[in-house]
Amino acid sequence: MIIDAHGHFTTAPPALEAWRRRQIAAVQDGTPQPRPDALSIGDDELREALETHQLRQMRARGHDLTIFSPRAIFMAHHVGDFQVSATWAAICNEVIHRVATLYPRHFAPAAMLPQSPGVDPATCIPELERCVRDHGVVAVNLNPDPSGGHWTSPPLPDRHWYPLYEKLVEHDLPAMIHVSQSCNACFHTTGAHYLNADTTAFMQCLDSDLFRDFPTLRFVIPHGGGAVPYHWGRFRGLAMALGKPPLPEHLLGNIFFDTCVYHQPGIDLLTKVVPVHNLLFASEMVGAVRGIDPDTGHHFDDTRRYIDAAALDPVAKALVFEGNARRVYPRLDQLLLAQGR
Amino acid sequence: MIIDAHGHFTTAPPALEAWRRRQIAAVQDGTPQPRPDALSIGDDELREALETHQLRQMRARGHDLTIFSPRAIFMAHHVGDFQVSATWAAICNEVIHRVATLYPRHFAPAAMLPQSPGVDPATCIPELERCVRDHGVVAVNLNPDPSGGHWTSPPLPDRHWYPLYEKLVEHDLPAMIHVSQSCNACFHTTGAHYLNADTTAFMQCLDSDLFRDFPTLRFVIPHGGGAVPYHWGRFRGLAMALGKPPLPEHLLGNIFFDTCVYHQPGIDLLTKVVPVHNLLFASEMVGAVRGIDPDTGHHFDDTRRYIDAAALDPVAKALVFEGNARRVYPRLDQLLLAQGR
Repeated sequence: MIIDAHGHFTTAPPALEAWRRRQIAAVQDGTPQPRPDALSIGDDELREALETHQLRQMRARGHDLTIFSPRAIFMAHHVGDFQVSATWAAICNEVIHRVATLYPRHFAPAAMLPQSPGVDPATCIPELERCVRDHGVVAVNLNPDPSGGHWTSPPLPDRHWYPLYEKLVEHDLPAMIHVSQSCNACFHTTGAHYLNADTTAFMQCLDSDLFRDFPTLRFVIPHGGGAVPYHWGRFRGLAMALGKPPLPEHLLGNIFFDTCVYHQPGIDLLTKVVPVHNLLFASEMVGAVRGIDPDTGHHFDDTRRYIDAAALDPVAKALVFEGNARRVYPRLDQLLLAQGR
Repeated sequence: MIIDAHGHFTTAPPALEAWRRRQIAAVQDGTPQPRPDALSIGDDELREALETHQLRQMRARGHDLTIFSPRAIFMAHHVGDFQVSATWAAICNEVIHRVATLYPRHFAPAAMLPQSPGVDPATCIPELERCVRDHGVVAVNLNPDPSGGHWTSPPLPDRHWYPLYEKLVEHDLPAMIHVSQSCNACFHTTGAHYLNADTTAFMQCLDSDLFRDFPTLRFVIPHGGGAVPYHWGRFRGLAMALGKPPLPEHLLGNIFFDTCVYHQPGIDLLTKVVPVHNLLFASEMVGAVRGIDPDTGHHFDDTRRYIDAAALDPVAKALVFEGNARRVYPRLDQLLLAQGR
């Protein structure tokens, strides 16, 4: 099986974005929020959006299943207050649930959380519980910077986040650490903020003993870990300087990197440097980089080709494509087993 | 020749730090600033600091010359106001000037600028002019985030920075884009903020036409370009999506990466992905990662070993070690020629 651990519904029917625009306008104007039931999307619209994009490319590339969550850039937790985020998260998670219900063999649902800057993350627990109970989500996306590029929340190892971690551990859910839209002009969202957040999150964990408190908590760091594998020597040296154990012992029981690195040399470095048990196949397709690489004639984000060409033996490739995801996302494994896969 | 393009005086005599602590305390207490002439460092102290650290290691590693600037983490432009930065920058630049005077064949001076958050960068021009005229600096360090991790300044392509670029172009000086201490708890200074800034600066330039306005402006992005070479495919794809020319045409006449990447696979990726004309040998020794890699028995920051072992032919290596630095830093070339080198 080929499991893509990182997909967002970037191609959702336009009515979803239109509703969100109305919500944002209401925040800006101080007028009443639009009602959630003012949004109407038919099953046919969902099918059309997926068949022409994600499903078409999954079939072309031979991906079997995608862990699918709401569009990352649209989470925009910095907009409005907790109630605004709560309504928006519930709507987006519902759409993902419908997708997973329409295509249960192709999409496993992951939830966004109704985070809001300056608000206790424990407020996200009811939505998390709902998505576990009613939608059977296999993971959540956790935004380490709900301010959108101003980085006003405490670092991930801070006790601020502990109530959420307790729930993740209780439900055996991994969290993908994924920021959203940057509203800081310094940071291009997909060209800087995403990668910076990946590096930042890893270093926050490195400079802490978080996983001593939560030995079974699991973080997936997307986009190939930001700058981390490229600077693996730097991080190994910093761990030594900070008096921490070597990285495998200190972090690699809990931190996993996806393979959203859009050229062969990057994937070659990733697969060489990071132990194979810590790699999760992923493409983030259809996402930040949608073009075709003129040098290869294939999509930049067709990461399966890079993994196929990487210097990994078949057992290692099977771990990257399937085995690790089943281990890191136990609820996905249960879902697949229930489907006879 | 082997030219190390990235060295800071991290081992300066303790009196320098003690003076700075007094200055910071005065800022915090609102008491009068210490006088610059209250700082006294003898030539012997400078020699001792260098002979036991940088010079010892330069000799051991076979580096001939280091482009040497004030300690990056100590620039701390977020402390106090412009006058505080101006006094501190003048002191630090003076110390570097003395080092370059004591060891003219081993250290070429580069200046820090008296940046201050929210203050017009044009205020840095007098110190820049002084360092060119009186110290013969071959480069400057430009901090794209004088706030220290809050990123409150406009992006580098903004006209905010243009007066400084005009002076850099006039004096044919490259700028190393280098942040300083992070005072944002989210960002570990050397494990996140430095690398994030490198990625951020590159993406700011990519998403602009800055070098159309300044075709001869040159930026050196340190720490191997942050996350950029590892995600080269992503950046190539983003340039296409943003309607920009291919990276070589769009940026690589103006942007150069140093080789401060502290393991062989990282250097192998860097030298494979980035054209050789855009690479500048550097170690940032004695810097962020001072330990010995238990896997190799050599210092993590002994980057010469990685370049020696990289798949580059002798002509390419000579460019990385010397030729590119002479081209990117014309004032260094003049200095070396005047020395008969």
